[in-house]
Amino acid sequence: MNEREVLSKYVYTIVSALVASGVEQVVVSPGSRSTPLAYAFASTKEIVMHRQVDERAAAFYALGIAKSTAKPVVLVCTSGTAAANYYPAIVEAKYARVPLIVLTADRPHELREVGAPQTINQVRLYGDNVKWSAEFPIPDEAPQTIPFIERHTVRAVNIATTAPFGPVHLNIPFREPLIIDFTDKLPVSSFIKSYTNELQPAKQAVAELTAIIEQTTTGILIVGELPLGTNTDYLWDFIREVKWPVMIESLSNLRTEIPEDCQIYAISTYDALMKNERFKRNVRPQTVIRFGAQPVSKFLMQFIVQANPQSYIVIDEDPMYRDSTHMSTHFIHALPGEWLSDLKLAHSQAEMAYVQFWKMADLLAADVIEKYSQFAVDEGAMVQAFLTSIEEDADIYVSSSMPIRDIDTFLLTQNRPVQIFANRGANGIDGVTSTALGFSNGRKNRKTYLLIGDLAFLHDANAFVASRYQECDLTVIVMNNDGGGIFSYLPQSKVEEHYEDLFGTPTALTFEQMAKMYELDYEKATSLEQFKNALIAKKQTPIKLIEAFTDRDENVKQHRELWARIHEVMEQWLDSL
Amino acid sequence: MNEREVLSKYVYTIVSALVASGVEQVVVSPGSRSTPLAYAFASTKEIVMHRQVDERAAAFYALGIAKSTAKPVVLVCTSGTAAANYYPAIVEAKYARVPLIVLTADRPHELREVGAPQTINQVRLYGDNVKWSAEFPIPDEAPQTIPFIERHTVRAVNIATTAPFGPVHLNIPFREPLIIDFTDKLPVSSFIKSYTNELQPAKQAVAELTAIIEQTTTGILIVGELPLGTNTDYLWDFIREVKWPVMIESLSNLRTEIPEDCQIYAISTYDALMKNERFKRNVRPQTVIRFGAQPVSKFLMQFIVQANPQSYIVIDEDPMYRDSTHMSTHFIHALPGEWLSDLKLAHSQAEMAYVQFWKMADLLAADVIEKYSQFAVDEGAMVQAFLTSIEEDADIYVSSSMPIRDIDTFLLTQNRPVQIFANRGANGIDGVTSTALGFSNGRKNRKTYLLIGDLAFLHDANAFVASRYQECDLTVIVMNNDGGGIFSYLPQSKVEEHYEDLFGTPTALTFEQMAKMYELDYEKATSLEQFKNALIAKKQTPIKLIEAFTDRDENVKQHRELWARIHEVMEQWLDSL
Repeated sequence: MNEREVLSKYVYTIVSALVASGVEQVVVSPGSRSTPLAYAFASTKEIVMHRQVDERAAAFYALGIAKSTAKPVVLVCTSGTAAANYYPAIVEAKYARVPLIVLTADRPHELREVGAPQTINQVRLYGDNVKWSAEFPIPDEAPQTIPFIERHTVRAVNIATTAPFGPVHLNIPFREPLIIDFTDKLPVSSFIKSYTNELQPAKQAVAELTAIIEQTTTGILIVGELPLGTNTDYLWDFIREVKWPVMIESLSNLRTEIPEDCQIYAISTYDALMKNERFKRNVRPQTVIRFGAQPVSKFLMQFIVQANPQSYIVIDEDPMYRDSTHMSTHFIHALPGEWLSDLKLAHSQAEMAYVQFWKMADLLAADVIEKYSQFAVDEGAMVQAFLTSIEEDADIYVSSSMPIRDIDTFLLTQNRPVQIFANRGANGIDGVTSTALGFSNGRKNRKTYLLIGDLAFLHDANAFVASRYQECDLTVIVMNNDGGGIFSYLPQSKVEEHYEDLFGTPTALTFEQMAKMYELDYEKATSLEQFKNALIAKKQTPIKLIEAFTDRDENVKQHRELWARIHEVMEQWLDSL
Repeated sequence: MNEREVLSKYVYTIVSALVASGVEQVVVSPGSRSTPLAYAFASTKEIVMHRQVDERAAAFYALGIAKSTAKPVVLVCTSGTAAANYYPAIVEAKYARVPLIVLTADRPHELREVGAPQTINQVRLYGDNVKWSAEFPIPDEAPQTIPFIERHTVRAVNIATTAPFGPVHLNIPFREPLIIDFTDKLPVSSFIKSYTNELQPAKQAVAELTAIIEQTTTGILIVGELPLGTNTDYLWDFIREVKWPVMIESLSNLRTEIPEDCQIYAISTYDALMKNERFKRNVRPQTVIRFGAQPVSKFLMQFIVQANPQSYIVIDEDPMYRDSTHMSTHFIHALPGEWLSDLKLAHSQAEMAYVQFWKMADLLAADVIEKYSQFAVDEGAMVQAFLTSIEEDADIYVSSSMPIRDIDTFLLTQNRPVQIFANRGANGIDGVTSTALGFSNGRKNRKTYLLIGDLAFLHDANAFVASRYQECDLTVIVMNNDGGGIFSYLPQSKVEEHYEDLFGTPTALTFEQMAKMYELDYEKATSLEQFKNALIAKKQTPIKLIEAFTDRDENVKQHRELWARIHEVMEQWLDSL
């Protein structure tokens, strides 16, 4: 074989192994060293190729596709700092457990660490933040090479998609020349099939879990963000069987699809309820069982610490289980799967009065929350208006820091299957718009909305470059309160000195010009009424940007008013008992 | 001491140790966990605090300040992916040898890897890309803590500013509450002074270098980008003594300050000359001595490989010396310092005819280059117009990939001390505008220009957020050829299939709206004439953006025409000898 044939066979083997492993989408950033890979992906009809110049945005975009499809997505970039730009999204993918297959093109060994241009040390570039990293050999004719890279590629996908999901990294060196021969037909692999395991709980774990539940009179369930691809029917079966109140995080996507017979257990307003000391004293549970990621609500976590339950059981698919309270008494290494439906109690001591007490409180708080716009016109009221106007077949991508809290507050239990997603692996405000664009592109049969604050929106302004290379469909709602809204709720806000410099950090920027630059449909709202009109205004272009101008001080004041009103209603109710 | 006093003493000790070590500037990104550090820096008058919300841009901005001041600059960010966003600039700082002191605030140990929000594994987050990384203890009253962190902070600066300069990382955990007591007076350190070494060449190295030079009749010097803070007088003394032609890279900043008696040695057009095989055969050197980074010119490096000199000596301050040709015969570990002035030859065999032959060729090529605008109106002609119109007291920050090549082509030897800088550690197109803004802010007594292509400019669009937080002064020239211009010069451009998708990657974006968004002065140029007018138009706001629309195909054609004309003149001359 000549040089070009060797190179072509090498890169098409990688692409072929990826396709055979179920990869369907790739996000490529332009560059020279990655030419052979880019050509191979571009010429393969089994793969959808997306493009984005900014590698940081590209990686978040890939993360978004993976989150919406629950399938591994490939990233391709050139050598040098291009690869370093992937780092934020890789870290998020690690903690959010999202399968990304990162392919970094590299210069060959003789050009590394010797001052050659665009060459950095890419071996283990992402350290502990990928589940696995391997260095591929330089393409050659040795008979070992093709079977080796075939299996190593399959293995990479296998590792990324074994629970807990996560990113993997393959570093692939190329010598010049970088041109390949195009082919329509991918090479057939000698490797046939890779089976990942089914992560089942130990039998003894199920037995002890069952026993604890059977002995519990007052227990609560907590469901946070669940592993990608979780079938929530299993959880509902479990809830039916256990008959405990369940604190449903908005990100669990159980809040909006509650079976009729489970309504009684479903609690969505726990963050507000947990601000009432008297209520908390009344509902101290014997047992807590938690699924998924730690919930957004700090008050809920503090409640568990205060309540100090006899049994606090964490069920998680990562052996490095997630419990920042250090109060858990049991850990069960398992995915929330079919075994939850299969779990049967011999008898139950679950107190119905306890369930009803929680539910009554939840209904009272929900009632106050529903009437929020009777006294408030701030971001919260806008989020509420948004949630009530949104179509059923829509998903909402939500940014840190304030928007996810507002969604968690204002999204009440309902039976309209709107789904909520967020980058809560590391809770960054980076890359959120790109993730939403990728998410939307991975889920074309539903509409996608992005709810985001001005600083997070500004952080990922480059996201829209993606819309110049492929069709993107998104409605963005930016809450522009000119700076960092979350800080107003923290103790820092009480220190006047340096506050605006370090925390408020207002930029006085607005996004109308940015919308023009990227040819986005733009609507501006300076009041709740205008905001409602902007929501229903017909979208003129594939991407619509609604910029709502709000006030940080008013937001705090009105949120506090909400909590005060809930507190008041709760106190009246508790007095009346 | 109460909690707050302990925390205050801890962070002011760090700031005090940094100030004592010569740190003058810090770039802070907003966040909650970093509150104690941010407060301490904000309230310390000995330190200038800069702000930028996007941590990727913040780190490049800090890199720019460090490059213009040749002093270490501190970065402060909060926990989580914020810290991962520093990675591209840290990698660039490592390879460009720039001292950055990266302070990442972290959550305390009990909140790490347990699912707590905004918490990632920050210990050794940057892997091999920092010179040193240390984890600080949680603030406490133990008597060991303060003296320890004092010395560890000084040590961090010491390591960053020992040749080769580079980034260091301190990871600093904080428990809540995060509020400190402000003070006007920094604590006095018990540590008095840290002396870094002076990196001198071994005596035997100087002896052998001298001997080789004395025996050489035809030798050339190559000077690339030099270590930060290099005094170029030493190099001129060396050139005077050695009497060889010297290939002066634009980034060495020797091209624009050539002493009268050294003019004869100074060659700037080597990239064009090295395209002529006949000339190359005529100038094969016995000896090559290289200082600084590998030059931009690929043709020059290929010439060395072809010429296969008897002695090829690399002088570098990093023991991992830079030579991607693997042809070097000697390595001298040294900074280009006073020892170069002290080097005296007992006798010289340097052939004056060889020097004159090089210089004649250089003058002929320079003459053609000077007349470029007689036949060309493309980016090259614009760069030339820019170089002739620029003030003496100005610096040019130049982006990869095409702009630095154009500057290297069109900046001829001259005596107007314009200085050229670029991110050539890893040659990325990321963070360039931020670096230029930081550079400008570090060097307020001179004007700063940025020359950049549209993709690189787009990549770092967030750079201008910095201008919302502090005064920035910059003139940006964007060569908008709608995509990746460099690729047109590579073999990929001959493969029509997928070319525009993967390499041209046009966005059809223009930057007038972005200028409006950030309130920048904007001038648009669609011709060389308009461009010249835009250059002389008075700047209306601190940042001026000149967007020149050019054509990728025309650029290639006209550059090739230039090389053809130089080739023709060279051939005529060589024929005439």
